[in-house]
Amino acid sequence: DYSKLDQIVIGICGGDGIGPTITHEAERVLRFLLKDDVAKGRIVFKEIDGLTIENRAAHMKAIPDDVLAELKACHVILKGPTTTPRAGDEWPNIESANVAMRKELDLFANVRPVKVPEQGIDWTFFRENTEGAYTLGSCGFETEDGISIDFTVTTTDGTERIAALAYDFAHKNHKNRVSIVTKANIVKATDGKFLRLCQEMGAKYPEIVTDDWYIDIMTAKLVDPKRRQDFQVFVLPNLYGDIITDEAAEFQGGVGTAGSGNIGKRYAMFEAIHGSAPRMVKEGRAKYADPCSMLRASAMLLSHIGYQKESDQLTAALDKCMFEEKALTITGRDTGCTCEEFGDYVMRTIETL
Amino acid sequence: DYSKLDQIVIGICGGDGIGPTITHEAERVLRFLLKDDVAKGRIVFKEIDGLTIENRAAHMKAIPDDVLAELKACHVILKGPTTTPRAGDEWPNIESANVAMRKELDLFANVRPVKVPEQGIDWTFFRENTEGAYTLGSCGFETEDGISIDFTVTTTDGTERIAALAYDFAHKNHKNRVSIVTKANIVKATDGKFLRLCQEMGAKYPEIVTDDWYIDIMTAKLVDPKRRQDFQVFVLPNLYGDIITDEAAEFQGGVGTAGSGNIGKRYAMFEAIHGSAPRMVKEGRAKYADPCSMLRASAMLLSHIGYQKESDQLTAALDKCMFEEKALTITGRDTGCTCEEFGDYVMRTIETL
Ligand SMILES: CC(C)[C@H](C(=O)O)[C@@H](O)C(=O)O
Ligand SMILES: CC(C)[C@H](C(=O)O)[C@@H](O)C(=O)O
Repeated sequence: DYSKLDQIVIGICGGDGIGPTITHEAERVLRFLLKDDVAKGRIVFKEIDGLTIENRAAHMKAIPDDVLAELKACHVILKGPTTTPRAGDEWPNIESANVAMRKELDLFANVRPVKVPEQGIDWTFFRENTEGAYTLGSCGFETEDGISIDFTVTTTDGTERIAALAYDFAHKNHKNRVSIVTKANIVKATDGKFLRLCQEMGAKYPEIVTDDWYIDIMTAKLVDPKRRQDFQVFVLPNLYGDIITDEAAEFQGGVGTAGSGNIGKRYAMFEAIHGSAPRMVKEGRAKYADPCSMLRASAMLLSHIGYQKESDQLTAALDKCMFEEKALTITGRDTGCTCEEFGDYVMRTIETL
Repeated sequence: DYSKLDQIVIGICGGDGIGPTITHEAERVLRFLLKDDVAKGRIVFKEIDGLTIENRAAHMKAIPDDVLAELKACHVILKGPTTTPRAGDEWPNIESANVAMRKELDLFANVRPVKVPEQGIDWTFFRENTEGAYTLGSCGFETEDGISIDFTVTTTDGTERIAALAYDFAHKNHKNRVSIVTKANIVKATDGKFLRLCQEMGAKYPEIVTDDWYIDIMTAKLVDPKRRQDFQVFVLPNLYGDIITDEAAEFQGGVGTAGSGNIGKRYAMFEAIHGSAPRMVKEGRAKYADPCSMLRASAMLLSHIGYQKESDQLTAALDKCMFEEKALTITGRDTGCTCEEFGDYVMRTIETL
């Protein structure tokens, strides 16, 4: 409960590529919204610079130890996109900083809202964030005769806590439906358990309808304009959550428009769901990077630490700006404004609300 | 090579729910198109009735032995949807007949075309059909302290043969792009190998561009109207293929409009990608079932056994009928025609082509 804290430390972690640009802009907007409490010392921003691919490669670690210590000294973190090395890349094969942070800070829930008011879409996804295909992602192996094996892991505790969070959210926000998404007809031990435990949690909320779907059918249902308004809250294992939230964000305008909260018992980290766009940096276009997703993530952060009014202000301003011309011609689209101009525009809009 | 066979045996396997209705209709259309060769005895139809959920439950086997023997006596099979028992169902927990048939007949490739001409969409998916999350789907287990584990398996041979089929198709059909879809950044041993072996296959086709995507991003890209025409041929592991082909079919009008080919070295099976719709049967509406997907599957079957002209005729008739009023008001949509009327309509259309 953040309301009991005398001081809240917000870590600002720029990441790679366009990350520092858009994260810096989000910090500027946060400082603007929180200026009184910054002045009083209740809110402190802490810059964490070491989460770059260069530094991670130098230490051959997804999160170097000193960076991890800095992260752990914060209450909440705003994180820019980080580059994940790929086979054949210039970078050595180190784990995704994202995935490592979720594990190290035990951020067990990935919460992703997707809204398209004019289409009646108001979805909130609760993606389990530390288990499933991600738990032992580097423990797979290949036998001599060419058989490769990977593991999927689902624990009882891990499932119960994500289910509890999803239903608690549904309950508090007066949602009347929770949809469980798995592939329990095939992936029986892990998804079967996930489905069963979520159903058991659902049974404790008689006012909420619980339904369940296979992931293949659900990716189709989201596309169907006749069906998609029916869904409200989703709870799903890590990999399916990863897949379906990218699809869902597309209806809202793409991954560039969506923020994401990684929530644990002790820490919380908010981030954009898109990548670090190294090409924009190489081509000298970083200053045109679109900060919308980081600003959405910032609104989630504000709400999480108890600044609901400021969160609502930011959300209202973003809803307005993103539909206006400046926003529509932003970044990459030739005549766009810069990241900084967009930040200014959001702050001016907040003042006129 | 079917052209060398004196006789081709087509197995007709009705399955469950609306399966027998729509499969029977497809057989009627096939007999109509192949009537000369049926008369000459070159084509023989063989009804296989035992693949019902009742019979499978009685034998407690996904495919009872005598049914499997009958299937193996055919060259190609047309199969209606089968019911897969779910937890809490009236049926015992037996494996999906679909999945079992793919394994037993070694149908290693699931080929699913999706076309939306007016949007420039012409995709063909090559889904690996026997490995990945499906190999050991019933071998997962739970430890005493609540940790459940499932396995994903990818073999070198299994990957090479699906990659070869996808590139061979691309080459023969003058496609200039093949897209590999994995989650190799996380699922490293199996997806990493799948990606690498497909890339190696791609290197043998210098005229074809190979690109690769993560499954999360690809589900978003398919939605993006600016990007989706770029894609042509996809090759992907079993589970991702399962997920993305349902999404893709939705753009074409839903899973009810899509056929699917399950191809092996020795056997091939063609099916609808939708379910058995037991509710329609219960409500006495089976005769209104929509046979489009089975007819699409039949067109794929015809092409596969060397009746390309007849396949093209059926496809042309379906393209026409599905856009006409009868088709649009078909089944479920109150004023629809029956399954049989639709079949008649397709045959009349073929005659006027
Ligand atoms: C970058 C990648 C490892 C990550 C994931 O797979 O979780 C991303 O896709 C996401 O959804 O945050
Ligand atoms: C019914 C089910 C087992 C099957 C699968 O998962 O492969 C289906 O979804 C399909 O795509 O054919």
